[in-house]
Amino acid sequence: MMAKSAAQDQLFIGIDGGGTKCRATIYSFEKGVLGTGLGGPANPLHGFERALESIMLSTQLAMQDAGLKLESVHDLYAGLGLAGVNLPQLYDRITQWDHPFKQMFLTTDLHTACIGAHEGNDGAVIITGTGSCGFSIVNGQTINLGGHGFAQGDKGSGAWMGLEAVKAVLESMDGLAEKTALSEVLQEHFQTRTAMGIAEHMAGQPSSAYAKLARYVFNAADQGDCVAREIVVNGADYISRLALKLLETDPPRLSMIGGLAEPLQKWLDPAVSAQVKPAIQPPEMGAIYYAQKAITLQKVS
Amino acid sequence: MMAKSAAQDQLFIGIDGGGTKCRATIYSFEKGVLGTGLGGPANPLHGFERALESIMLSTQLAMQDAGLKLESVHDLYAGLGLAGVNLPQLYDRITQWDHPFKQMFLTTDLHTACIGAHEGNDGAVIITGTGSCGFSIVNGQTINLGGHGFAQGDKGSGAWMGLEAVKAVLESMDGLAEKTALSEVLQEHFQTRTAMGIAEHMAGQPSSAYAKLARYVFNAADQGDCVAREIVVNGADYISRLALKLLETDPPRLSMIGGLAEPLQKWLDPAVSAQVKPAIQPPEMGAIYYAQKAITLQKVS
Repeated sequence: MMAKSAAQDQLFIGIDGGGTKCRATIYSFEKGVLGTGLGGPANPLHGFERALESIMLSTQLAMQDAGLKLESVHDLYAGLGLAGVNLPQLYDRITQWDHPFKQMFLTTDLHTACIGAHEGNDGAVIITGTGSCGFSIVNGQTINLGGHGFAQGDKGSGAWMGLEAVKAVLESMDGLAEKTALSEVLQEHFQTRTAMGIAEHMAGQPSSAYAKLARYVFNAADQGDCVAREIVVNGADYISRLALKLLETDPPRLSMIGGLAEPLQKWLDPAVSAQVKPAIQPPEMGAIYYAQKAITLQKVS
Repeated sequence: MMAKSAAQDQLFIGIDGGGTKCRATIYSFEKGVLGTGLGGPANPLHGFERALESIMLSTQLAMQDAGLKLESVHDLYAGLGLAGVNLPQLYDRITQWDHPFKQMFLTTDLHTACIGAHEGNDGAVIITGTGSCGFSIVNGQTINLGGHGFAQGDKGSGAWMGLEAVKAVLESMDGLAEKTALSEVLQEHFQTRTAMGIAEHMAGQPSSAYAKLARYVFNAADQGDCVAREIVVNGADYISRLALKLLETDPPRLSMIGGLAEPLQKWLDPAVSAQVKPAIQPPEMGAIYYAQKAITLQKVS
């Protein structure tokens, strides 16, 4: 646990904003969690105003849940972990936002996820859901790996697995690659018997649509389908290499979070999976620790 | 050459409409090419009204070039080869268009490219430019392979090569994959020294932006870079398999067209490259042959 000396009776709000939803938690180091709220997409890269709206909606819902009057928003110390703010331009725009909080402390959602997973202590995290990326904090040094986005990065993620499955099926249905059980599965899923039918369904779809197909890949791999198995093995191999790279920085702990963390586990390099520890707290709590630490540093300096 | 008995003194217009431009040629089987015109994007999948505008613009320019009055558009027999009309819905919408021609005969741009390449005779074509696909006509049977679109299909195309290069560079710059000369090249191209900088430049870019990077991959492969070489070899291997599959239908000729046909040639399976013959006529002429044949069939039936 972090030191609780500073701001002991202060109210904090921790906000975790990602591409599909925004979670807010109101917390006091004396009384614990007072309320939570859930808003919509909050990645400013995919809609700046929308992100601010989602942040405010989740804030208001958390305040309602905590039985707080709306004007007490001005008393909250806010920690924000937002997707997209690794881009300096977006970081600057958010910090220039005329926010309603007493003070606001901004960092990336990866950073707050890592702080939360290790309850404020040093450590590393790998996030595998729709996308994939890795992050570590050791002795004040941070490392950020992957997370380059669909379709050029995020290997081993749900979107990557879905895309690889579609590619393999289309090539196989053309008679240009080995047969796979995934062909039958995707034809059933899309209610079409042709390669062009599948291609049409997926044309221009976002990463989330591909990520929905990932479970089929794991299922087929479990049932011994060679093509699905190769996809999962390749994806897991990348995640293992990402983990080993992060472990080079000697983080005291390594956690894997996101929807693919559990299904990927058994496919990882045993040297990696043996080291994976559960995340202790969610990213919203990481955002609160981040704000609390920033305030402590302000008081010290 | 095709039989010229039918419609000998008729005026034809052949239109080749693709994702970036639309070419029109006015032709008489007595006098040859009378005029040509160039319009904008004409893939109805990416803009239906825009496609019709591009078709009409290229038509008007070709008529002007031929010294024809605008009202003679009603005397033209039109052959149209359009991207996107392999989708039945778009095919129907275009045929329902209140067009100004005497008669209009519609098929895919692949079909007219194949007819043009073999001057109206049976044969097969592989098109490799921004995308990739294969087509053959033998004894009235057509086969259509690949062309499933970026990023899920079109292996061996310019866009595919560019994407594979970006993926390899991002992974290499993270220290998770072998070093490649392409890293230096892309850093120079995008004027950035970081993986995230490259990722930002390419985020959400269309296939054409990736295709622009293909020349770097060929250059680096020629200079012996292993990563670039593997990309080119994999892409060429797919194109070779596509060709061999088309050759199973025993087409009298096989042509390769598009911007990547020449650089790919030396990387193909020798059994394939030995069989590649030059395209005799461009797709616009294929569209004219298509219309002429349709009229002949009308008269016979």
